Amino acid sequence: MPRIDLNADLGEGFGVWQLGDDDAMLKIVTSANVACGFHAGDPAGMLRVCRAATERGVRIGAQVSYRDLAGFGRRFIDVTAEDLRADVVYQIGALQAIARAAGSAVSYVKPHGALYNTIVTNGEQAAAVAEAVRLVDAALPVLGMAGSAFFSEATRLGLRTVAEAFADRAYRPDGGLVSRREPGAVLHDPAAIAERVVAMVSTGEVTAVDGSRLAVSVESVCVHGDSPGAVRIAAAVRAGLEAAGADIEAFS
Amino acid sequence: MPRIDLNADLGEGFGVWQLGDDDAMLKIVTSANVACGFHAGDPAGMLRVCRAATERGVRIGAQVSYRDLAGFGRRFIDVTAEDLRADVVYQIGALQAIARAAGSAVSYVKPHGALYNTIVTNGEQAAAVAEAVRLVDAALPVLGMAGSAFFSEATRLGLRTVAEAFADRAYRPDGGLVSRREPGAVLHDPAAIAERVVAMVSTGEVTAVDGSRLAVSVESVCVHGDSPGAVRIAAAVRAGLEAAGADIEAFS
Amino acid sequence: MPRIDLNADLGEGFGVWQLGDDDAMLKIVTSANVACGFHAGDPAGMLRVCRAATERGVRIGAQVSYRDLAGFGRRFIDVTAEDLRADVVYQIGALQAIARAAGSAVSYVKPHGALYNTIVTNGEQAAAVAEAVRLVDAALPVLGMAGSAFFSEATRLGLRTVAEAFADRAYRPDGGLVSRREPGAVLHDPAAIAERVVAMVSTGEVTAVDGSRLAVSVESVCVHGDSPGAVRIAAAVRAGLEAAGADIEAFS
Amino acid sequence: MPRIDLNADLGEGFGVWQLGDDDAMLKIVTSANVACGFHAGDPAGMLRVCRAATERGVRIGAQVSYRDLAGFGRRFIDVTAEDLRADVVYQIGALQAIARAAGSAVSYVKPHGALYNTIVTNGEQAAAVAEAVRLVDAALPVLGMAGSAFFSEATRLGLRTVAEAFADRAYRPDGGLVSRREPGAVLHDPAAIAERVVAMVSTGEVTAVDGSRLAVSVESVCVHGDSPGAVRIAAAVRAGLEAAGADIEAFS
Repeated sequence: MPRIDLNADLGEGFGVWQLGDDDAMLKIVTSANVACGFHAGDPAGMLRVCRAATERGVRIGAQVSYRDLAGFGRRFIDVTAEDLRADVVYQIGALQAIARAAGSAVSYVKPHGALYNTIVTNGEQAAAVAEAVRLVDAALPVLGMAGSAFFSEATRLGLRTVAEAFADRAYRPDGGLVSRREPGAVLHDPAAIAERVVAMVSTGEVTAVDGSRLAVSVESVCVHGDSPGAVRIAAAVRAGLEAAGADIEAFS
Repeated sequence: MPRIDLNADLGEGFGVWQLGDDDAMLKIVTSANVACGFHAGDPAGMLRVCRAATERGVRIGAQVSYRDLAGFGRRFIDVTAEDLRADVVYQIGALQAIARAAGSAVSYVKPHGALYNTIVTNGEQAAAVAEAVRLVDAALPVLGMAGSAFFSEATRLGLRTVAEAFADRAYRPDGGLVSRREPGAVLHDPAAIAERVVAMVSTGEVTAVDGSRLAVSVESVCVHGDSPGAVRIAAAVRAGLEAAGADIEAFS
Repeated sequence: MPRIDLNADLGEGFGVWQLGDDDAMLKIVTSANVACGFHAGDPAGMLRVCRAATERGVRIGAQVSYRDLAGFGRRFIDVTAEDLRADVVYQIGALQAIARAAGSAVSYVKPHGALYNTIVTNGEQAAAVAEAVRLVDAALPVLGMAGSAFFSEATRLGLRTVAEAFADRAYRPDGGLVSRREPGAVLHDPAAIAERVVAMVSTGEVTAVDGSRLAVSVESVCVHGDSPGAVRIAAAVRAGLEAAGADIEAFS
Repeated sequence: MPRIDLNADLGEGFGVWQLGDDDAMLKIVTSANVACGFHAGDPAGMLRVCRAATERGVRIGAQVSYRDLAGFGRRFIDVTAEDLRADVVYQIGALQAIARAAGSAVSYVKPHGALYNTIVTNGEQAAAVAEAVRLVDAALPVLGMAGSAFFSEATRLGLRTVAEAFADRAYRPDGGLVSRREPGAVLHDPAAIAERVVAMVSTGEVTAVDGSRLAVSVESVCVHGDSPGAVRIAAAVRAGLEAAGADIEAFS
């Protein structure tokens, strides 16, 4: 079994509002994608989750987003490359200081929500995000989807790319994810999801919706924690990987 | 004549909105207090002003504020120490990354508006701001008012304090500023203001509103740039200091 | 037993974030204080809660606040009377249109959080809020605390005032609430709270923390719904009042 | 000469920031599209411009937008129909109360920026905006572009549509506007623009970029006021129309 990282979105509350069970997830994951204030995350909440992550030895990543609190970063925004680049620099920097105040550091960058999806194919926004990371620190890896425009741009700029798989999402034969609007796009059974992740990590393949086998070379698996059911799935994935003898630790 | 720094608030637009003439001011000042997004300053605008400052060799400082775009940071907010601390860490970090992207760095921190005024006397908020600076980088100097609670807390935490004088404000005999609500609080004549600043810098004294002489030991003079008249005053102050043989450069 | 209204804060989520169990509370209360977007409440969420309130025959009130999403309106802001007046007009108007779209209307105004507390004593802000209500509709009643500066100003302007009591808060002998920072400020036992509300409504008196009896003439009782325990308390209060023969309906 | 309305965007500052010369424009136009807080416009500023409009007898319209202060509403946002509908209801209602407080009322609705452009062709968002207007008040006319999806949806819902022309924009032969990215898209000479508007109003035709004649039946002409040059153009348009004998007044 190869070494595998588990990542999840954390710190996605804002002020009085909470989302998900950060404490539970910090016992499961090795990498925490911390919201940076544009789709979620007020500074005091960011500091709390960074402290908790630091205490548990969980790595901190900057989960950067469109500026869209009301839409939780889930809506495509036709932002210019110039604005997006600066927005991403700003968010990474803010979290860097917060992480430093918590005794840790930002170790990678992962785009969030609609930005994540957009830069799978949108070259201009993909380049803007990659350039932003390089402007802040060319040694910061980016977490994302293999084969994406984002990875092309990141590679072009000399950034290290870390490919991730989605534990609970169905794959198309071409390696993309089945749209959430289609039936069967999201898997719900913890045991089945865990088994699937174990297979994916051990064989480097996943079964697509049409039954075909698909090569997926990933260094990280994305799990969710925004519902009690999600935490149970994440725990099942971790337990499954451990039982299979996988070395669960943050990517290097 | 001692060496003296000139500082001004810059980058105080937001999105499409501009405030003041940043380019004109960057020819006059040695230190630019750049807004960090909480009272003004969108990331792309922050990046533009940081690039311009870098090109001109003007030092960049983080102008941190209450979270209050609608009030431009001019309204006291009864924020908890915990929230304020994190808010300030966040803002400094955001500007650090922006400044780095511009090929420079954040060299000091200066509170803005109502926060500046509040922490002259409010010990709890003063301590929160000083702690935030130390959490980010204990080597960052803070710019503020001599005798303030903020300077007491900063000194207690081992931060370097840089005292500033206000070029265009009348002083009370106790060293405080005459309230803006009182007549004569703000000076308007460029020549008189320049003369006054030259006297302040060369003698270490200023004449208070009651005619008494007041010791003011300052390393920096704050000038404004948010109106054509303000830019003229700032230029007059610089010209006056240069004519008097002062060494105008950023504090060390 | 006199007639009594039960009011609660509803619609206090924002975007993806939820707070409290609005559906449960709509089965209990007769008046819903709906957040208007300044401390909580995005338009789509406001519309959903207004529709649900309309279906259940629950009256809608505008819960107006300082502009402070990050602080949930719980932090005093030293806003000018001019700005506060316009902010309150804006919020009431926004909810009026939302309520109309839901087939209902705004029937009263209740300030939220720090604004509520501030205008118990701050005459300038109290006047600004009262003037805002009158500017929108002089026939709109205001919900608040008997003896407050807010009620003085509202009465001066000819507004109808509706006094409320807090089901779960301890009273000082002078009629004010015991500060949340003091022990015993908040009551937690559903049965005791229900009994106390029934006594308050039937006798017009409440026992203060020092054991003295205090006259409280109220037309509405404020209950909370932001936790499972809070919903249980609210249900106990309603059940207690019904058992005592009270006529639970919205104030006229 | 037929009767013609002149409309312009006003109240597009936010807090301390101003944009354009509202006072100058209020002497020129008959309809003021007032920003409602989502792309610009804080409540106190909205109230000031509504009061000034009321004093001058200028009609007030709600200039509704995507929620995007940082982008001034100029960026397409892929908002759901449900959210957009509620966002527009909210904005109209907010301005209705502000206008009422100023002694006037909202007389029409005009979408702003990227929303305006999007609903020329995007049927789903067009329907959401039209439905929002009807939910608030089915008697409110909408101002927009003839032939747009927005007008189709508005007509379908029984709303009155008021077609506008752009004084300073070049037209394609199909009636659309030449993209701002193409040369010659925006006209700059006040005399030429005024002459063109007079011709458009008197003949019902405009010359497209390819020299062909195009029928444009408009009830309103949109002028801009966000620069000294823009105000001069607007004044020239009004003077030209007056000299040509046009009856310049708000549409009925």
